[in-house]
Amino acid sequence: MHAFIRQRPRSSGRERHFCHTNGEPWYPFDTTAYVWNYQSEAVQADTLASLAASPFNKIRKCVFPKHYHYNLAEPVRFPFPGNIETGFDYTRFDVSFFAELEQQIDRLAGLGIEADLIIFHPYDRWGFSRMPLEVDQRYIRYLVARLASFKNIWWSLANEFDLLKEKPMHFWDAAIARIQREDPSNHLISIHNWHNPPIHYPSNAHWYDHHNTALTHASIQHHDLHFVPEWRETFNKPVVIDECCYEGNVDLGWGNITAQKMVALFWHGVCLGGYVTHGETWLSDDEIIWWSHGGKLKGESVKRIAFLRQLLEEGAAKRLAPVPWGSHWDTSMGMSDERWGLFYFGDHCPGYKMMTMLPPDSVWKVDIIDTWEMTITPVAQEIRQGDKLELPGKPWIALRLQRL
Amino acid sequence: MHAFIRQRPRSSGRERHFCHTNGEPWYPFDTTAYVWNYQSEAVQADTLASLAASPFNKIRKCVFPKHYHYNLAEPVRFPFPGNIETGFDYTRFDVSFFAELEQQIDRLAGLGIEADLIIFHPYDRWGFSRMPLEVDQRYIRYLVARLASFKNIWWSLANEFDLLKEKPMHFWDAAIARIQREDPSNHLISIHNWHNPPIHYPSNAHWYDHHNTALTHASIQHHDLHFVPEWRETFNKPVVIDECCYEGNVDLGWGNITAQKMVALFWHGVCLGGYVTHGETWLSDDEIIWWSHGGKLKGESVKRIAFLRQLLEEGAAKRLAPVPWGSHWDTSMGMSDERWGLFYFGDHCPGYKMMTMLPPDSVWKVDIIDTWEMTITPVAQEIRQGDKLELPGKPWIALRLQRL
Repeated sequence: MHAFIRQRPRSSGRERHFCHTNGEPWYPFDTTAYVWNYQSEAVQADTLASLAASPFNKIRKCVFPKHYHYNLAEPVRFPFPGNIETGFDYTRFDVSFFAELEQQIDRLAGLGIEADLIIFHPYDRWGFSRMPLEVDQRYIRYLVARLASFKNIWWSLANEFDLLKEKPMHFWDAAIARIQREDPSNHLISIHNWHNPPIHYPSNAHWYDHHNTALTHASIQHHDLHFVPEWRETFNKPVVIDECCYEGNVDLGWGNITAQKMVALFWHGVCLGGYVTHGETWLSDDEIIWWSHGGKLKGESVKRIAFLRQLLEEGAAKRLAPVPWGSHWDTSMGMSDERWGLFYFGDHCPGYKMMTMLPPDSVWKVDIIDTWEMTITPVAQEIRQGDKLELPGKPWIALRLQRL
Repeated sequence: MHAFIRQRPRSSGRERHFCHTNGEPWYPFDTTAYVWNYQSEAVQADTLASLAASPFNKIRKCVFPKHYHYNLAEPVRFPFPGNIETGFDYTRFDVSFFAELEQQIDRLAGLGIEADLIIFHPYDRWGFSRMPLEVDQRYIRYLVARLASFKNIWWSLANEFDLLKEKPMHFWDAAIARIQREDPSNHLISIHNWHNPPIHYPSNAHWYDHHNTALTHASIQHHDLHFVPEWRETFNKPVVIDECCYEGNVDLGWGNITAQKMVALFWHGVCLGGYVTHGETWLSDDEIIWWSHGGKLKGESVKRIAFLRQLLEEGAAKRLAPVPWGSHWDTSMGMSDERWGLFYFGDHCPGYKMMTMLPPDSVWKVDIIDTWEMTITPVAQEIRQGDKLELPGKPWIALRLQRL
């Protein structure tokens, strides 16, 4: 049985990670299929089979249906009785919808997968993004009352909360406080921001303030994982990049990066002490796209993400914290308790590295990892601070360091 | 004979480009070989032969020798009489050094190459970066008096001026004013900043203020060309990214990007209305590295940069200005007079694009350019605003648009 996940208590401000309630470490490897729960039974079965064979142990999904490019089919069932022609009866819930939602969450639990449930989102043609306040409140209360008993539920207040322009900031403050008050099991809780690089690159002032102590982690959309160390310091809680761009070829900038880059984003994020969420946006004749509908995983990044997960999970607990770059600004360097490290060069191609970033008087066993080819090549000699380490001089290389 | 280059007068604040004094457009395609002028005759001959066969029409080079990784050999001649053991006589100049410098500048002129002369820089073991103020002033006066008659000279006050920590900001203000006052030919003049991403990514507050009207263009070191439109707007003058990282495999983050990324930086910069400077840092058994010593060009980016230069130079003058991203944030879009455009997708891989960024009621001939393979594939149909354009869905693709 899959254990209930909750944030590990912070220790001396050093740890910003997750663990099981029994204290064992837990590393989120998340994917995104916003409305897989609204698809046909066949597609849902594909989704669950894909997840079962994947490295993912968490999935982001919405309660409400989604109106967006590639996602214009009309659902057959909604959280409230009614339909888009006749309108919805906000005084009642469609219990059959929630029964199905529970079944879906239960199936995820059976696969050991956390359900990061998105409570509100802006992509809407039905009106669910601008219901009366009283309905929003009743909806939240109902969700929490029905679903808090699931061990694998997480609360995500919103996807891109700042695009829900009719809801003022105090709405989110109150909603977060309400969930914290009404959820007897204190499930993980977060809120996710819009990110449009041309607008938001120079400033994150539009974010909800993740300092709110009710938020268990910072759920961030951003395309540049360089900032993970800053966000860890700022919020002093785990950082999950719950959208950084998706592998695929759709016409929208967030959904057409290469598999190489998707894998690189995972490695950068993890080495810098954060976690990263996957998504796939491959155009498909059947118009089933993983990021929205679920279905079948088609990309080349998934198996490399599995490889990274395995590196983290084998052996002792990893609590990676970023090593300051110093002169090594081509390298995302994570170190766990000064005993185990993962350094990643991304698309930089050093032919060697002077290992000046290692602590003095320490001796290390080093493996050179090709994160794309998924090979691990031990370095023959022991490595000390300042030693010259020969490297392949090509992209997607990492180092695993184990202290001797 | 190569024409004297000077900045084209700004027109309605729209143009931030360069042209010849006769008004013809001129597009800088710059490279970097900081101290090629200090190398052996054989290496200098290689450098000039490499430049002659290259697309580069401008080179960044230092007056003073350089003390830096991969660059520790002792020069035989200096701007001042003396050597590192006995010290230097700052009351006199070594006229043979300057005669050689003039000859080098003249040889560049013969190849149609601008000499962007770096007057000060921080990488120093001889003391030239911290001479008495009076010596600095005399040195500048001497340089300008001797070299202003060269048609192809540009003044770069410094490479990474902010690392010359003993020189206060008013030193630079005064030096720029002095050059402007004493150069009868008003050569192009700029000043270049240090850029260490972990420190400087969130802020450019350490830059010299390129608003200074004596500066003819903003000479910027930065790794992210996304900001070129902002810098053009801010400074209202041409923007040249005189360091964005170099193709190669040295152990330093700025010097180990792939050829693909070097080419991508050129395309992004040019499409966004700026210009970009090349460099190569390939480790070499003979310890001759282009970025510092000159010698032979070895990289894979040069011929792709030549291809881009050809696209700009053929046909009518190009005055690319960035098209606001809107929803197309995977695309660096430059448009010249609403008649000719160059759009670049970089490492994004859209399988198609809805051409919503085109002006209404305009009709375009479009070519799909593979910037790496250097192929140009005409699109059969005419393209109008909002049309769907099928694309290869792989990295390094650009579009050339010509209005019909």
